[in-house]
This record gives sequence, structure tokens and C-alpha cells, in this order.
Amino acid sequence: MSAIDIAATALPLTGERAERVEDLTRAFYGLLGAERRLKGRDQQRPGQLSHAQVRSLMELAKGGGTMSAGALARAVELNPASMTATLDHLEELGVVRRGRSDEDRRVVLVRLTDEGQEVVAERRERWQRLWGAALDGVPDADLAVAARTLRTVAGLLDDL
Amino acid sequence: MSAIDIAATALPLTGERAERVEDLTRAFYGLLGAERRLKGRDQQRPGQLSHAQVRSLMELAKGGGTMSAGALARAVELNPASMTATLDHLEELGVVRRGRSDEDRRVVLVRLTDEGQEVVAERRERWQRLWGAALDGVPDADLAVAARTLRTVAGLLDDL
Repeated sequence: MSAIDIAATALPLTGERAERVEDLTRAFYGLLGAERRLKGRDQQRPGQLSHAQVRSLMELAKGGGTMSAGALARAVELNPASMTATLDHLEELGVVRRGRSDEDRRVVLVRLTDEGQEVVAERRERWQRLWGAALDGVPDADLAVAARTLRTVAGLLDDL
Repeated sequence: MSAIDIAATALPLTGERAERVEDLTRAFYGLLGAERRLKGRDQQRPGQLSHAQVRSLMELAKGGGTMSAGALARAVELNPASMTATLDHLEELGVVRRGRSDEDRRVVLVRLTDEGQEVVAERRERWQRLWGAALDGVPDADLAVAARTLRTVAGLLDDL
């Protein structure tokens, strides 16, 4: 069943339930915006990596450190020209290396270097500290409820 | 205090607390990804608006229906050329109209048409139904805790 079908067949929400659901969606989009603004501020600092560069490094790390340039471009949603420019810059910084696949010489493989792994680890630790500071004082039980609720939404959106 | 300072001075989280926080960040980014994938699937349908087009309409509605093209471009994070192309397309569809400001002829004002208002209202209702279906069975109290937790994170990220 597609998202469109669900939307067409689901009953419209009413009353307090509608308000609760809308309140959560607003909170989610509010957090999305705050996160985007924070990243924007970070990136205006000279010498900082761009959003596309950071996402490329993070996706590479998620993919075990090596991915084809094509798979990486799909994962970070960049067109081939932008992906090439991003990888040019990352390679200059020494955080990735490109090479041909031994199995298929047409495939360009991108590999996170040791320095790239360090950059990823540093950024992850920094973001973990930020979230930790932001959530200081929120009980563990509330974090668990919030995480479960977000997963419920994510799981169902993926099933639509 | 900048995000970098907070990250430098905050104690690293340890033990169960670190796991709880990381679990919530993963749930948040997981939902982000699911939402992006759903929007991606929606947009592959012929005749659908692009992400930039939808965001432009939503921002216009948030801004009361009329905004300068410059303010809109900043809000949706498009460069001037992409903003112009997006507005060309939206104007062709009849959902926005461009005109010069009476107060300052150099300023291009973008206005949501009645048809544009309808498109925004339809999409909002569709998304509200989707979220409602996704959250079916989650108690109101959990929605409230999740919303409050997301707002706590958003508020603190904005203060960093």
C-alpha cells in the first residue's frame, strides 16, 4: 500500500489526538530545523567540511570504510558531478583515497583513510557530547519512550 | 558559548546513559532517513512536485503567504539560480505569483495563490494522516514525552 493510499483511506484525526500527533510532528520538524541551523553555523567556520563532505565520510564509515563511488553518491544523494567534486576535495584533505576495483576496473572504489577514520570518530564523539549536554536532566525513561516513538514512526513510514 | 566549546567542555557520557542518548540520536536519524526515503518515493511519481518546490510552498505558507524571493531562498537554502528555476516552475503551475514590491521596486515578492494555498492544505492533511496512521496505538502520554524530549534537544541546540 503506497503512502498515497494510506493517506486516502486513513481517517482524519480529530480532537485531542490530532493535536497530540501534530504537536509531535512539529517537535520533530523543529528539531530538524535546529539541527540544520547548528550544522550551518558550524560550516561557516573557516576550514570546516561541507555538509556533503561530512555525510560522505559518515556514509563511508557506515559502509565499513569502503564503497563504490556510485553507491556513495546514491547514499548521500549527490549527482555524479557533485560527488566527483566532493571526493576531489576529500582526497586533497587526505581523508579518502580512490582506486579501481580489482574485480571490475570500471568501478571506482572510495576508501576512508586512517585520518578519515579519526575525523569520523572525532565528529561522532563531538555530536554525542552535544546531544548529551542537550538532554542533561531528561530522565532515562523519557529518552527510551522518545526513541521508541521515533522508531515506530520510522518503521511505519518505511513500510508505506 | 559555541557548539564547539560545549563539545570541548562537556564530560563524555559513559555507561548506560551514553547508550540511552546514542539510542535516541540513532532513532532520530533513522526517522530522518525514513522520511527522506518516503519523500523520495513520492517524488518519483510523475507530476509530483520536487522537494525544493514543496519546501518553497510550505515556507511561503509559514511566512503568511507572501515573502520576498530573497528571504524565501534563504529559508529553503537555495542559491538564486535554483530559486528562480523553482519559482518559474511553480508560477507555471499557477501556485505562486511573482510581482514587484510597491515599497521597493528592486524587491521581488512571491505570493501563494488560492490554488497554492489548496496544495499546501492538501499536503498538510495528507502528512497529518500519515503520521496519525504511523502512531496508531502509541499512547497520548508517550507522544507528549517524545515531543517534549525533541523540543528540549532543539531548544538547546539553538542556544549553543
